[in-house]
Amino acid sequence: MRFPAELQELQPQPGPSPWDARFSDSARCMVPSEVRSLFSAAASPGIVSLAGGMPDVGALPMDTMASILADVVRENGTTALQYGTAQGDPGLRRRICEVMALEGITARPDDVMVTVGSQQALDLVARVLLDPGDTVVAEGPTYVTALGTFAAARARVVQIGMDRAGTVPEELAAEFARLAAEGRPAKLFYTVPTFQNPTGIRLAAGRRQQILDVCRAADVLVVEDNPYGLLHYDGTPSRALCADAPDRVVYLGSFSKTLAPGLRVGWVHAPTELTRKLVLAAESAMLSHSALTQLTVDRYLRTEPWQERLGTFRTRYRDRRDAMLRALTAYMPAGTSWTIPDGGFFIWVTLPDGTDSRELLPRALAAGVAFVPGTAFHADGRGARHARLSFSYPSPADVDEGIRRLASVLGEQP
Amino acid sequence: MRFPAELQELQPQPGPSPWDARFSDSARCMVPSEVRSLFSAAASPGIVSLAGGMPDVGALPMDTMASILADVVRENGTTALQYGTAQGDPGLRRRICEVMALEGITARPDDVMVTVGSQQALDLVARVLLDPGDTVVAEGPTYVTALGTFAAARARVVQIGMDRAGTVPEELAAEFARLAAEGRPAKLFYTVPTFQNPTGIRLAAGRRQQILDVCRAADVLVVEDNPYGLLHYDGTPSRALCADAPDRVVYLGSFSKTLAPGLRVGWVHAPTELTRKLVLAAESAMLSHSALTQLTVDRYLRTEPWQERLGTFRTRYRDRRDAMLRALTAYMPAGTSWTIPDGGFFIWVTLPDGTDSRELLPRALAAGVAFVPGTAFHADGRGARHARLSFSYPSPADVDEGIRRLASVLGEQP
Repeated sequence: MRFPAELQELQPQPGPSPWDARFSDSARCMVPSEVRSLFSAAASPGIVSLAGGMPDVGALPMDTMASILADVVRENGTTALQYGTAQGDPGLRRRICEVMALEGITARPDDVMVTVGSQQALDLVARVLLDPGDTVVAEGPTYVTALGTFAAARARVVQIGMDRAGTVPEELAAEFARLAAEGRPAKLFYTVPTFQNPTGIRLAAGRRQQILDVCRAADVLVVEDNPYGLLHYDGTPSRALCADAPDRVVYLGSFSKTLAPGLRVGWVHAPTELTRKLVLAAESAMLSHSALTQLTVDRYLRTEPWQERLGTFRTRYRDRRDAMLRALTAYMPAGTSWTIPDGGFFIWVTLPDGTDSRELLPRALAAGVAFVPGTAFHADGRGARHARLSFSYPSPADVDEGIRRLASVLGEQP
Repeated sequence: MRFPAELQELQPQPGPSPWDARFSDSARCMVPSEVRSLFSAAASPGIVSLAGGMPDVGALPMDTMASILADVVRENGTTALQYGTAQGDPGLRRRICEVMALEGITARPDDVMVTVGSQQALDLVARVLLDPGDTVVAEGPTYVTALGTFAAARARVVQIGMDRAGTVPEELAAEFARLAAEGRPAKLFYTVPTFQNPTGIRLAAGRRQQILDVCRAADVLVVEDNPYGLLHYDGTPSRALCADAPDRVVYLGSFSKTLAPGLRVGWVHAPTELTRKLVLAAESAMLSHSALTQLTVDRYLRTEPWQERLGTFRTRYRDRRDAMLRALTAYMPAGTSWTIPDGGFFIWVTLPDGTDSRELLPRALAAGVAFVPGTAFHADGRGARHARLSFSYPSPADVDEGIRRLASVLGEQP
């Protein structure tokens, strides 16, 4: 297939394998992410991994989870083990509306589709809204696998920086104007507004309406990716962007961080017509989601004190964040700075001037600690002075030891 | 985006909604299938549904399934409820190789990827191999949701008829030659060789190597979709196409018909380099599959007499097929004919000359029986004289009653 001139930068380069000639243009744009290849190294014994953003599922009551699953099958097995609909279980979609209400959203079950984690929701949104060459604006840095999804869609990603309060509305407006003047206006603004991955930054309350106004003025759709919103440490959930602009915001939610990623239950809430199209896309992508795992989440939400348990998770994660902040203060050399997140899983570190986090990584692994270099979260090679540190999975003692090791490697900069 | 001239027939037509302007070209090619919209009508009380191809999950030992799930969580919960890898659980991939061996395939776990049913496998294969305008050859009729997946990929589907022994190798070769001469050679041959959906036809053993030779000579890749292969009624599994050409055949397998679709566990086996690319596509599509449902299938295969139980399923489905064949013979008017499948879920009926199955359907629903019109299984409106009847889900008595109702509607042809 020939490319229009403006798509040259997205044209995949043929590689050396005979298979390359068979691959689609989209497939040629799929390349392994730095993060994924890192995860096998990070899983080696003796390594403290501050790399993966895994929730601490060990905090779940396993006997209870086992009973819920057994009850779902015993009481409702012929539904749980059968095909379902592409949109997802109606009962679970009603519960999801209740969950969304905690962040100020008034949702109808008809506008919700259950997905294989929120990653599938993002993928389906990209397939339904993006043509090759379309422009997506995202935060810089942003969630690494979103970059992969946009690359597979052969979209152009333009990233704009944030300050400590998140995206600056004026800068977003200026970027939209620049892109429109260039003749390639932004189609989507992809944002993780609350406890962002990878920075932990929470978009300030006062900026939320402004961001929506900017997007409305430029006629840009917003994709609000919000897996961490309920994992706030100060007792106050943020009001979702979707709450104030349900006609403009596509909201992605997930039970991977508040319950268990192994169930692979996430969702998308979108304007009715878009939801209908997403259901068709889901049908061709997988026919239907697992009825078993959907009914399991539904039963968990109906029968367990899940909001109380969320409080336990918050305390657990806050303790680990505190351990990381203490360790950073205690061990890091001068010239290092970091974000102080009030929720979520991540701290974003700015390393001393002259440090390249990609060069630091092999030495850090040799010293027994893994992290993700900041370049992984940019589409254009930026981020070399940064690192994402995740405190969600290791124990507070391991967090401390990991930061101590990282600091010692930084201290012996060549 | 502009279309080359040869893609005109695939150019989506803008509809009346303001959302249409936002949808991608792919999304505009996604349209509701006749089958899906039928399923809600077919689920009404009092209707005997011969429409859906659902397995009879009621035949599963629910207490056993409940115990397996509970044991997986109690013994291995921190793995089962956590993120996994995009390629899928290594233990399950080893078991899948043992399952494939029953059809003559020598597989390595490295060349297997676990998917959300085989539908996701097909979708990912289409994304990784097809560009808009590429040509796929498929059987006519073929699996309806494969047509949806190829439409979303904006591929052109060319369907070729079968005789009672399946695809005729000489006709396939002639079609490949015609397409090459036209300058748009076939890229894939999509086939359900064993107990085909929707006809129940099994590709004759003597033709299998010939079909592979034809595809090799034309340098066309084969996608072998094989969810029904182990549901044979005569005691003999067919040798998979993949067994004799693993470098050319992409094999799609599923536990949806041999265990339970609600677990959503299928797989793809492909040449190593293609598998690697499929893993990248899966990562951007969903990060990872449910570890819980994968470990459940793995445990079922390890601890249960699953091959024996498969024998029970075969007997059950054969009894229902027999009930349908008896009823067709007893009730159907002259001029009706049908396939006699020796496995799988479906019988393909040719209606009396002059009958349009789409016009028949509303009258059949009014008489209390649902089926799928043959047009659903063609990309080009053919199939109006045909109907797919599924015997997998209703009891033998319901099968008999359903056919009696259908025949009575046919008898009062206007």
